[in-house]
Amino acid sequence: MQRIVLAYSGGLDTSIAIPWLVEHYDAEVVAVTMDLGQGSELDETRDRALAAGAIRAHVLDVREEFARDYILPVLQADAIYDNGCPVATMLGRPLIARKLVEIAAIEQAVAVAHGCGGDNDPMNLDVAVRALSPVITVIAPARDWRMTPSEKIDYARMRGIPLSAGTTGYRTHTNLWGRSVECEVEDPPTSPPEQIYTLTRRPADCPNEAAYAEMNFERGVPTAINGVAMPLVELIASLTTIASAHGVGRIDIVANRLGVTSREIYEMPAAIVLHKAHKELQRMVTTSDAERLSDALSRQYADVIHDGLWFMALREALDACVAKVQERVSGVIRLKLFKGDCHVVGRKSPFALYDQAQATYDAADAFNHTATAGLTRISGRPGPTAARQA
Amino acid sequence: MQRIVLAYSGGLDTSIAIPWLVEHYDAEVVAVTMDLGQGSELDETRDRALAAGAIRAHVLDVREEFARDYILPVLQADAIYDNGCPVATMLGRPLIARKLVEIAAIEQAVAVAHGCGGDNDPMNLDVAVRALSPVITVIAPARDWRMTPSEKIDYARMRGIPLSAGTTGYRTHTNLWGRSVECEVEDPPTSPPEQIYTLTRRPADCPNEAAYAEMNFERGVPTAINGVAMPLVELIASLTTIASAHGVGRIDIVANRLGVTSREIYEMPAAIVLHKAHKELQRMVTTSDAERLSDALSRQYADVIHDGLWFMALREALDACVAKVQERVSGVIRLKLFKGDCHVVGRKSPFALYDQAQATYDAADAFNHTATAGLTRISGRPGPTAARQA
Amino acid sequence: MQRIVLAYSGGLDTSIAIPWLVEHYDAEVVAVTMDLGQGSELDETRDRALAAGAIRAHVLDVREEFARDYILPVLQADAIYDNGCPVATMLGRPLIARKLVEIAAIEQAVAVAHGCGGDNDPMNLDVAVRALSPVITVIAPARDWRMTPSEKIDYARMRGIPLSAGTTGYRTHTNLWGRSVECEVEDPPTSPPEQIYTLTRRPADCPNEAAYAEMNFERGVPTAINGVAMPLVELIASLTTIASAHGVGRIDIVANRLGVTSREIYEMPAAIVLHKAHKELQRMVTTSDAERLSDALSRQYADVIHDGLWFMALREALDACVAKVQERVSGVIRLKLFKGDCHVVGRKSPFALYDQAQATYDAADAFNHTATAGLTRISGRPGPTAARQA
Amino acid sequence: MQRIVLAYSGGLDTSIAIPWLVEHYDAEVVAVTMDLGQGSELDETRDRALAAGAIRAHVLDVREEFARDYILPVLQADAIYDNGCPVATMLGRPLIARKLVEIAAIEQAVAVAHGCGGDNDPMNLDVAVRALSPVITVIAPARDWRMTPSEKIDYARMRGIPLSAGTTGYRTHTNLWGRSVECEVEDPPTSPPEQIYTLTRRPADCPNEAAYAEMNFERGVPTAINGVAMPLVELIASLTTIASAHGVGRIDIVANRLGVTSREIYEMPAAIVLHKAHKELQRMVTTSDAERLSDALSRQYADVIHDGLWFMALREALDACVAKVQERVSGVIRLKLFKGDCHVVGRKSPFALYDQAQATYDAADAFNHTATAGLTRISGRPGPTAARQA
Repeated sequence: MQRIVLAYSGGLDTSIAIPWLVEHYDAEVVAVTMDLGQGSELDETRDRALAAGAIRAHVLDVREEFARDYILPVLQADAIYDNGCPVATMLGRPLIARKLVEIAAIEQAVAVAHGCGGDNDPMNLDVAVRALSPVITVIAPARDWRMTPSEKIDYARMRGIPLSAGTTGYRTHTNLWGRSVECEVEDPPTSPPEQIYTLTRRPADCPNEAAYAEMNFERGVPTAINGVAMPLVELIASLTTIASAHGVGRIDIVANRLGVTSREIYEMPAAIVLHKAHKELQRMVTTSDAERLSDALSRQYADVIHDGLWFMALREALDACVAKVQERVSGVIRLKLFKGDCHVVGRKSPFALYDQAQATYDAADAFNHTATAGLTRISGRPGPTAARQA
Repeated sequence: MQRIVLAYSGGLDTSIAIPWLVEHYDAEVVAVTMDLGQGSELDETRDRALAAGAIRAHVLDVREEFARDYILPVLQADAIYDNGCPVATMLGRPLIARKLVEIAAIEQAVAVAHGCGGDNDPMNLDVAVRALSPVITVIAPARDWRMTPSEKIDYARMRGIPLSAGTTGYRTHTNLWGRSVECEVEDPPTSPPEQIYTLTRRPADCPNEAAYAEMNFERGVPTAINGVAMPLVELIASLTTIASAHGVGRIDIVANRLGVTSREIYEMPAAIVLHKAHKELQRMVTTSDAERLSDALSRQYADVIHDGLWFMALREALDACVAKVQERVSGVIRLKLFKGDCHVVGRKSPFALYDQAQATYDAADAFNHTATAGLTRISGRPGPTAARQA
Repeated sequence: MQRIVLAYSGGLDTSIAIPWLVEHYDAEVVAVTMDLGQGSELDETRDRALAAGAIRAHVLDVREEFARDYILPVLQADAIYDNGCPVATMLGRPLIARKLVEIAAIEQAVAVAHGCGGDNDPMNLDVAVRALSPVITVIAPARDWRMTPSEKIDYARMRGIPLSAGTTGYRTHTNLWGRSVECEVEDPPTSPPEQIYTLTRRPADCPNEAAYAEMNFERGVPTAINGVAMPLVELIASLTTIASAHGVGRIDIVANRLGVTSREIYEMPAAIVLHKAHKELQRMVTTSDAERLSDALSRQYADVIHDGLWFMALREALDACVAKVQERVSGVIRLKLFKGDCHVVGRKSPFALYDQAQATYDAADAFNHTATAGLTRISGRPGPTAARQA
Repeated sequence: MQRIVLAYSGGLDTSIAIPWLVEHYDAEVVAVTMDLGQGSELDETRDRALAAGAIRAHVLDVREEFARDYILPVLQADAIYDNGCPVATMLGRPLIARKLVEIAAIEQAVAVAHGCGGDNDPMNLDVAVRALSPVITVIAPARDWRMTPSEKIDYARMRGIPLSAGTTGYRTHTNLWGRSVECEVEDPPTSPPEQIYTLTRRPADCPNEAAYAEMNFERGVPTAINGVAMPLVELIASLTTIASAHGVGRIDIVANRLGVTSREIYEMPAAIVLHKAHKELQRMVTTSDAERLSDALSRQYADVIHDGLWFMALREALDACVAKVQERVSGVIRLKLFKGDCHVVGRKSPFALYDQAQATYDAADAFNHTATAGLTRISGRPGPTAARQA
């Protein structure tokens, strides 16, 4: 009997996917649940998978791998979407794809399956799986079954699958790096309801005293908060707690996706703070032309992730460039967190290009003022020529 | 006797420039002081110019021209420096150049002069003047005289020029669009002293109640705040008051300038709010590829201003493109101002590409889920090929 | 009875599309054949359409509109694909879409149809039609009928549709701007067979005497060849003749299309010569930063056409910028055509930024050598700082 | 007595620079002549240096280092100027700077000197030396002495310095990678006189039989011509001979340099052929998005060299990215050389993304035509929305 490995979240869609796959493909289903830091009860999830008909249910803690191989490169590349939003949900896709392919090899499965529907998210999973293994089949039941929400509930009831309590009306997604919400009632003119936020405190309710976070970086890797060294997973979790308490990390945007404009809410406290700190530190230690290159590559990096091309040669080329730049990205950035706002208030790096002697305005300074006159004459050259013609 | 038209600010440098020009060029000096919204007492400035030896002293209110012909194009282009800072001081340079050339023609002067020193600021003035008139000479006394600060004070005392009271130790510059401070003690690790800010309230001292600003735009032009229509100069002044009261507009950055990294503080309340509103509105009404083009042109526009190339053909080409995009930039953006933070909380536009039917996730929605499967197969194509080779 | 307007080329696919549409949609078919300069016998084409079952067959000469509204903007934008190939076949798509929509309105048709198959070409037509009219249906029989080549021939025979003689094994497409060939035997290691080229002479067989073409431009519009003024359609046709005789215009590339790499042959004599001349002239009259902007927009323009987005706001924004730049693009470019090679040998423009006084290397020249020293010191600034740290 | 190390070419300027440096700096001058493949008689040059007053004269053969560490990275990056011209003269500057600094350390010299004048070339040398050593002084006599050509000749005569025979009226520069000519009579409307070309044969006089060059690459390194393996220096020299004989490599452009437009002639036979071959091969093995990144980095790389920033962090970052891409750039490109024209006629690579099955147009092919329909619907989405609003 053929076997299918299913990425199992425990939600309605992946739960009914189990019997659906069994019925449509005459196959055994192996459920795989991954802990990317979403914070749900995964033992319970395993039980749900078995109850729904899976022959086996694996639970994998991939948080460390997620932080090291996915979050860190993205932080170092400062991969930010055009709308200013850090990469969130999409970032988990390539890791999920890699694990599905690995488990499929172990389980000798002919196909992998996932619960993503018809928006552009599933591209990431499909494309990533195909890049890792050209022979494996990818099945996306939620794209194929064409059931309405109520039909899905009926389908679950008929097969004895328990429905989870909190069907909120929002599609949310959480991992170590942040939380995304796609509003069902997408009405941009109004502010979203406060209860949509579950991670961050409402700015108005935050402490009246600002908090300060001093972030240490060593060659592009965040290594300590306020002097306390910790591994990356812990550092992100800890920063999430600190920043959330001060209302930092809320993003409310109108996103463009392949010609479709939609509204999305994010809570990304650690991502916001770390990107701000990393970018500021990198700017201190790179020349303006190198900084501009980094900016261009950042946008490209975000595109790569958005388009599901993580496992392609392009990302490796970008990574090589980013890695080179990180060699100088060591130092400390001090940030102030206050009622939803986060900004840099101090910087220090042994590689800072900043040089006090050069930046002051003393008559006797090292910066030769006459030099400016020369530059002015040269770069302004086209002016007179154009003027004479007018 | 030859005549020189001097851009006169009333400060120490331009005050001693008057006798210096008279002495070194055996010339008459005509002082021109322009009101770009810096908020100083200009009648008094006129008297100082005459007292210092100018044969005539003009005071021009150019605020409306500044807002219409300089601030507005920059807002519509969303010209932001790479470091995220709006264009500030530099934006006044081309207008000052234009007025100097105009007054020089009226006064039949052979040269214009300005008080800028040896940093890269004066490029803007020199290059702009030369682009407008290839025959006129530009003199920059502060670049040529090579006096130390104390020598300048001596020079002023010997010629009976009264020193202004507040020599703060900071170089500041204010106009309608914002205020910049260049710290003499440029020590990035520490927070700047609170008294460096004169426009915006300290976030911790701001009201506990958020303020909301609803910004109306018509074809890219901001026309009303909270439903009250007003001309652009007033609108910017009014918005400065509102946003400053909520601590919005402070920027503390390390800037890269032609290979020199320096620290700069800005207070730009109206600029921050208007750019945020304009960009958000424009994003709602443009496709993602057009938005990406606009982003690229924004950076280029900031470069143009930074390099003093305002009067060059490149800016006209950028303006033509920006103007076309503005045709759809009409609508209302609602922003929340709270303890230093400013973010968008509502949006409305008759040209919004946002379409509720397209963005929802109903099984029966207009968005064909099968279409995604097609897209996935095509764009993922290189994957299997590459994989087969590996 | 409902009516469908079909873009009719006279080939096998569009010929069998007529009965196929009648049968599958129970509709009347109105055939529209457009003369974009493909040089085929269009009266005969009209007869074929009627013979195949069309109720009416229109023939439209759209060459002038094609040259003025499609070729000219593309020439002025210097829209060249990343692989160095001018825009060819794709350029006719938006015009065909526009005409189909116009004729559909006149004929009160509910749908338009075209003969494009499953490669990425049809996107252009579908997307363009939809941009012009959101209500009309687009039908692509060749995408839907899923017939093999031999099944198509059987289908035609059974319905008495005469097959055209020359089924060459290549897919070719010709219009005023050039000719494209997609090789059925796509074997990149070998040179394509000489008979694949029908427009241009084999370089080895070209005259031993070079030809010279002097191209006049007025504000970006080519107006004369070797001093003889002519309208654009004639000028392109005439230049095609001249350049083809000297073997100019052959392009043999490996193209990347949406993840698929393929081999394509082009013959674009007029396009090659005109782009080269236009670009050279434009470079003479623009500063290097404006030239760089133009280069970036050129690539974007080519993308817009490739992606079928001709009727979108992005192209209008690009056009506005291009139009501004064209204001100075007047002058004469002289090109040498010799055995397949075409290069610029002379240039003249009243707006040339080139200024002999500036470019010579005399000790007494206008170019201040000391100025260079100033520039060197400033732009090299990061060097010593970085070196001191090492 | 202090010592100055002078980059000595043997020409008039560097010859009179020897006594000039002795006289103005009261210093000993050590001449260093480097063989970058310029093909002149260097033993004779050494004698000239000593005759002109140098205390020592070194001759260094740096051709291999030049090819490996400068030409190869530039070839792999496909660093081409905006005007389509390969990097030529500028490429030798960083190597000369490095050798000057090395010799200065050995000779315990306090300064290095070079013969470049006031155009933007010397920036490269000055900036490069300063990046390598922040303490050494750079002297550019030809920038400082302000002599007219005839004054220079008088100066040489008075000091008994023999003038070299061929003062052509052109400024030329030759190295292994190519030859540049800057015309004294810079008249763009006319073709340059044939005698300006000394490397390449006039196309009309070239053989009537085309030559074919098959270039082998291994991981981005050209390793063989027509199957004959050879080291890089030899390969470039050999290719120069072959291509020159067929008139390939002439470039006649109007260049933009820092606001100055000038005319330049190049002969770069090996560079033209190798760049064409490398780029074609790289395009075959990279996806279109990676290719686009490479194109962007190519332009940036050329800027880096042009601005003299070879030894900066930015180039290292670019190199890292380029190196990653080269991992797949192995294969053979076949080029046809014929009467001045050079184009690709065959390609082969084990890593080619080209896949015959994907690129054909059979009804039964692997390329799912229905997939295209899906893609069309999604990417065309904004069309109808925009249309409905109009």
